Amino acid sequence: MTDIQGSSPSRRALIGWTGAGLALGAAVAGGAVAAANAGNDVDPAAAEAGGAVEFHGAHQAGVATPVQDRLHFAAFDVKTDDRAEFVQMLKDWTAAARRMTAGQAIGEGAYGGLAEAPPDDTGEALGLKPSRLTLTIGFGPSLFDKFGLRDKRPEALVDLPKFPGDNLDRSRTGGDLCVQACADDPQVAVHAIRNLARIGFGKVAIRWSQLGFGKTSSTTPDAQTPRNLFGFKDGTRNIAGTEEDRLKKFVWVGDGDGPEWMTGGSYLVARRIRMNVETWDRTSLQEQEDVFGRDKREGAPVGRAKEHDEPFLKAMKPDAHVRLAHPDSNDGITILRRGYSFTDGTDGLGRLDAGLFFLAYQRDVRKGFIPLQRRLAAHDALNEYIQHVGSALFAIPPGVRDSGDWWGRTLLSEEA
Amino acid sequence: MTDIQGSSPSRRALIGWTGAGLALGAAVAGGAVAAANAGNDVDPAAAEAGGAVEFHGAHQAGVATPVQDRLHFAAFDVKTDDRAEFVQMLKDWTAAARRMTAGQAIGEGAYGGLAEAPPDDTGEALGLKPSRLTLTIGFGPSLFDKFGLRDKRPEALVDLPKFPGDNLDRSRTGGDLCVQACADDPQVAVHAIRNLARIGFGKVAIRWSQLGFGKTSSTTPDAQTPRNLFGFKDGTRNIAGTEEDRLKKFVWVGDGDGPEWMTGGSYLVARRIRMNVETWDRTSLQEQEDVFGRDKREGAPVGRAKEHDEPFLKAMKPDAHVRLAHPDSNDGITILRRGYSFTDGTDGLGRLDAGLFFLAYQRDVRKGFIPLQRRLAAHDALNEYIQHVGSALFAIPPGVRDSGDWWGRTLLSEEA
Repeated sequence: MTDIQGSSPSRRALIGWTGAGLALGAAVAGGAVAAANAGNDVDPAAAEAGGAVEFHGAHQAGVATPVQDRLHFAAFDVKTDDRAEFVQMLKDWTAAARRMTAGQAIGEGAYGGLAEAPPDDTGEALGLKPSRLTLTIGFGPSLFDKFGLRDKRPEALVDLPKFPGDNLDRSRTGGDLCVQACADDPQVAVHAIRNLARIGFGKVAIRWSQLGFGKTSSTTPDAQTPRNLFGFKDGTRNIAGTEEDRLKKFVWVGDGDGPEWMTGGSYLVARRIRMNVETWDRTSLQEQEDVFGRDKREGAPVGRAKEHDEPFLKAMKPDAHVRLAHPDSNDGITILRRGYSFTDGTDGLGRLDAGLFFLAYQRDVRKGFIPLQRRLAAHDALNEYIQHVGSALFAIPPGVRDSGDWWGRTLLSEEA
Repeated sequence: MTDIQGSSPSRRALIGWTGAGLALGAAVAGGAVAAANAGNDVDPAAAEAGGAVEFHGAHQAGVATPVQDRLHFAAFDVKTDDRAEFVQMLKDWTAAARRMTAGQAIGEGAYGGLAEAPPDDTGEALGLKPSRLTLTIGFGPSLFDKFGLRDKRPEALVDLPKFPGDNLDRSRTGGDLCVQACADDPQVAVHAIRNLARIGFGKVAIRWSQLGFGKTSSTTPDAQTPRNLFGFKDGTRNIAGTEEDRLKKFVWVGDGDGPEWMTGGSYLVARRIRMNVETWDRTSLQEQEDVFGRDKREGAPVGRAKEHDEPFLKAMKPDAHVRLAHPDSNDGITILRRGYSFTDGTDGLGRLDAGLFFLAYQRDVRKGFIPLQRRLAAHDALNEYIQHVGSALFAIPPGVRDSGDWWGRTLLSEEA
């Protein structure tokens, strides 16, 4: 168990400027810091208190952590050619992430007295609870074309194939880096991404970003699955954050998987899936239930009574979503889903620009998302009502071990 | 005090289809329905319980109601020329709004057994709490060009003038109708707008819509003001929902104000204000505090110690935002603010498309927003960092009195 406060046990104020006669002190109403990441334990008490999730650990938080209510996800492109500058930015990001996830403002009071300098923290999360904020970094395939990293690109970090029906918008696809910010308070998640973008100014720039307002998956054992924007529960049999055996088998990169710098990491697929809600809303209940292979009210598989009852796949239509996506139809393929519903206003035709921002973690995308999506893209009855419009794949490095460690060290340090 | 359940005391299931052997029953986990609108009383207990806000009353809920955490706002254009069809849609909307604000699914189980029909409710809010949902309707100036309503257009429903610095995007401006959905759970707010759009299909179409993720104003007495995306508390001296005298003086349309159909209503100004957060984040703390006329940490006016201390305006720079916007600088002009922060991803240049969706209610916009904004647009130091990019004005009719009443009756009924 590491010192979760790192080297800064005292909580310092955002505004250290005493010129206005303000007392220095604890300005941040931080909740208790819970050990909800170390060993990926679930700590429901921390959740209820709006508390903090441990930033340090063998794995990054935000994967097996119980799913928070809101999301701000950003993909960045690297703008600098200077490896040392990029490494320093990752260290600065890590320091900021360590403080923000603990509910603290960025900056160690380093600008005390400097009214002439921009504040180290933009301030809009001041006074808000930590809200279980997790920040999870990932490295996209294109990063490995830079900084002499070509030889370090994992074989599993493939270029995703084009699937039938894909209609990808380049401006919502790819990215050298990503940061997934999840929190129970959206202002806390938005604050985190905005401050990382600010710290990275001149070195990285946001390529695209996505807000998610409602979680569609649960990684808490036996919890009710939240409904997606089609009104259905989907992905009932998710991997729970407490299922260490399944996490080890399906999510975390193992010792022999290679490359070594990825051990303890994972691979993240992000897909922006537009849902044609207006069309869906005009289809009959029977059609909707046939498409999913579930009843709408309970979320029970066809012919069963409750959401978590074992599905009888052969009772469903051959193209039913549950039947096609179930591990029993896919040689046991299982991924950990953390998707969120989104609504980005209205398109030019008065239709809601709404859907599912699909996020899935897996040990190897070649044995996870790719074969699964090949099957779904070819056969799923749901395809009539959805379209994949954005896509990205990222290598998620292992966790930051302690207060001296930093995001990407295993990939980028001189000793690595 | 009206019967808040209207004529349907029993909570009916969303899915009345018994063909699958499902029991009918109370499918909606509704919280207690609190009388938080009648007389505009504040009921913090209802808020904590995720309860319901009373839909019926002399005034519409969502104006003086304590500000909820999240917003989905939609402006609609009318597509039908048939007045009777439009009136029927308003009646259908009212029935749906009555049920949704009570935490119930739409539809009285009217399609029991009809698996062949689309469900009356899209379902994604099923199982969620009422979450203090309020739905507030408004009529834009352009509506009065239709349905023979020209003579009923209030004089106060002016065409807003062009203010210095306005850079309005037509696709985010105007609208024949609006619905403001506020709730503590964004999925509940999104569900409400989506279902009203669905019910209105063919009669109205969404012109633009806006999600707000963080409230920036409080209408609860003495509450701390939430921070905007510049990290500041702004609009500290808002009208509280309990201040009946100030509501009567500044917000509600009075008996002699005219026209009669608006008595008990209000006028809503909506402005999408883009905030150039990247530029702001690179300015010094001193400049930021000078611009607002407040200290950043506490939100105290210049030279004072606490947010709610009375500001000494002459201690501020002449162009400070607080100084220019304060009622003492504006012949006592006071508006009720209910704005929300928004972040709509990233623009083409990698900058956050973020800002304030400003919502302000007033008795007469000619004595409220217009003179205030004339002054701010001409002089406010904040103008260097913001831009108004969307705008609309709506007449907010009085409340729906009881279960037989409907949105717009005072304007559109044959007896009106």
